[in-house]
Amino acid sequence: MQTMQSVVLRNGSIQLETVDVPQPGPGQVLVKSLACGICGSDLHLTRHTDEVFGLYKKMGLMPADLEVNPDIMLGHEYSAEVVAYGPDTKGELPVGSRVTSVPILMSQNGAGIGVTPGVNGAYSEYFLLDEVLMLPLPDGVSPQAAAITEPLAVGLHSVNRSEIGEDDVALVAGCGPIGLAVIAALRLRGVRHIVASDPQPSSRAMALEFGATEAVDPTQDDEVVKAATIAGENRVVIFECVGIHTLLTSFIQRAPAKARLVVTGVHTTETPVNFAFALVKEMDIRFTYYYTPEEFAECLDRIAKGQVNWKALWTGTVGIDGVPGAFKTLMQPNSHIKVIVEPWRSGELEHAE
Amino acid sequence: MQTMQSVVLRNGSIQLETVDVPQPGPGQVLVKSLACGICGSDLHLTRHTDEVFGLYKKMGLMPADLEVNPDIMLGHEYSAEVVAYGPDTKGELPVGSRVTSVPILMSQNGAGIGVTPGVNGAYSEYFLLDEVLMLPLPDGVSPQAAAITEPLAVGLHSVNRSEIGEDDVALVAGCGPIGLAVIAALRLRGVRHIVASDPQPSSRAMALEFGATEAVDPTQDDEVVKAATIAGENRVVIFECVGIHTLLTSFIQRAPAKARLVVTGVHTTETPVNFAFALVKEMDIRFTYYYTPEEFAECLDRIAKGQVNWKALWTGTVGIDGVPGAFKTLMQPNSHIKVIVEPWRSGELEHAE
Repeated sequence: MQTMQSVVLRNGSIQLETVDVPQPGPGQVLVKSLACGICGSDLHLTRHTDEVFGLYKKMGLMPADLEVNPDIMLGHEYSAEVVAYGPDTKGELPVGSRVTSVPILMSQNGAGIGVTPGVNGAYSEYFLLDEVLMLPLPDGVSPQAAAITEPLAVGLHSVNRSEIGEDDVALVAGCGPIGLAVIAALRLRGVRHIVASDPQPSSRAMALEFGATEAVDPTQDDEVVKAATIAGENRVVIFECVGIHTLLTSFIQRAPAKARLVVTGVHTTETPVNFAFALVKEMDIRFTYYYTPEEFAECLDRIAKGQVNWKALWTGTVGIDGVPGAFKTLMQPNSHIKVIVEPWRSGELEHAE
Repeated sequence: MQTMQSVVLRNGSIQLETVDVPQPGPGQVLVKSLACGICGSDLHLTRHTDEVFGLYKKMGLMPADLEVNPDIMLGHEYSAEVVAYGPDTKGELPVGSRVTSVPILMSQNGAGIGVTPGVNGAYSEYFLLDEVLMLPLPDGVSPQAAAITEPLAVGLHSVNRSEIGEDDVALVAGCGPIGLAVIAALRLRGVRHIVASDPQPSSRAMALEFGATEAVDPTQDDEVVKAATIAGENRVVIFECVGIHTLLTSFIQRAPAKARLVVTGVHTTETPVNFAFALVKEMDIRFTYYYTPEEFAECLDRIAKGQVNWKALWTGTVGIDGVPGAFKTLMQPNSHIKVIVEPWRSGELEHAE
């Protein structure tokens, strides 16, 4: 049995390990990882391993009597190359074809690639996909571009879930990769007023480049008042893309009447809330966590058509042995938006050209 | 200047007072109160005066430096008789006509009748309406029936806000007047599966009479599991009609994936929430507090057409001097659903025929 290198999260520490190359089961395809984005949720899980797993146990997503935190083989924003087909597959795409897919294995009860313990993620040299979920990369779409499909789908889903109208005012709080993906999707949906809010000047500049119509520094100005003033009688739709739980409470208190709060950030901390504020304003609070295969495919298509400025998101590249160091860098204040792991090579984190 | 009797909430105590009969201003009409329902929010305000007013100050709905709790002249679920028109009115309905209206005075900056300090409520012998908002009672609609328009409108609005589909499963938690109004509206909207949940056997029986298809005692069975089992792949829409804040946290934790939680109960207490549960389930939480004039008019029309079993809600009647005693009764466990005040007469609380 062949072995390969794989990045493993073990008890809050990111490690490079040598593991067996997985064998494709029925309906599965062995693929070689070409490019895989480092996601904010990977950083969150690394920083708050005990809290997240404790919550998973409480939710019944993980056995409650598990005493040791399981290893997670990270990596769920990827593109890859077809290596070998397992049994019960059609094999329509030739070996060597470049593909991507939603990070799910229907063949393993909906296990999450790069999330579920025991399932190889794409920060590995090789991993498994379901043949039925594989999408070939359209002509001209690079592995790096395709790896950005996933965060774009998170943004598109969030905007679709919001049911925002073209005349509503979007307030995008937090202009990291997901906030920028939300802004890109708002533009695709024809929303005319997009207020971006971020304390970092470089993030605000990027938000404007992505199509925000206003950029606010929330440490200097009240971003909610700004959006409400532009909105007038129209609705304000707040996209929370930060993942700081106190911000939810703050938006519930500060939002104007009939505002919609779309929660896209990851929240695992208990927070005190007085719902009276939401009640008298008749707010909607909508939580978004997934996306559909259709939304994923739409994003890949938009990238292929040049309708999304995906390249502006790509700020860094790292080989497989550089991932532990890259996580250390990304967990400190930094200027990166999206760092892409290239698991087929070695090398430390470098800025993208 | 003539005087009249009026029920006043002063610092958590319900009192009968002699006050001046109000003078109709421009666009206003002086009316005689015929019937006015006692609302759960009146009881909530009486029980939690300091908490509610403290919150109003925090929300900017009341001056923050107010040191004494203002008097509230209660009563916002009413029907009335036209007595005299103020200046700048058309006077199309003859004096003596029976009317109702949404409890708002546009002529006083949207002040709430029965809510805003200084504005007469309908637990008074006389009060003021805006002519433009007045609706004549349709033929055959009694003053008591018309007084029930308002809580029905709260239920209809809640169902409209929920955007529930006919195949979704409704779980109505709490079968007091608002829960029953929600059930009535769900029936009008063609929803096929309505699970009613209430610890009181009499409330469950009433819920079934109103059109619930199942009734669950939540102290014996898990009402959420019941609704989710019926729903299968369809959505569960939970209508919280109780107003106990811990129930919101509980529903957020227990709801199935993609559930919608519609909050109709009044909540003024801060409560700890872990939004992770809502996040991984992609829940919607929608808060409802108002209704539109159109929804109010639709409810009056439905009553006139005999499409709502309004009479089953009416369990008690009381004269104006019996209101303080009726509040004492209603703040203890009791079997009443809707008690109607008849401010034009005296008398203690009696069961309706």
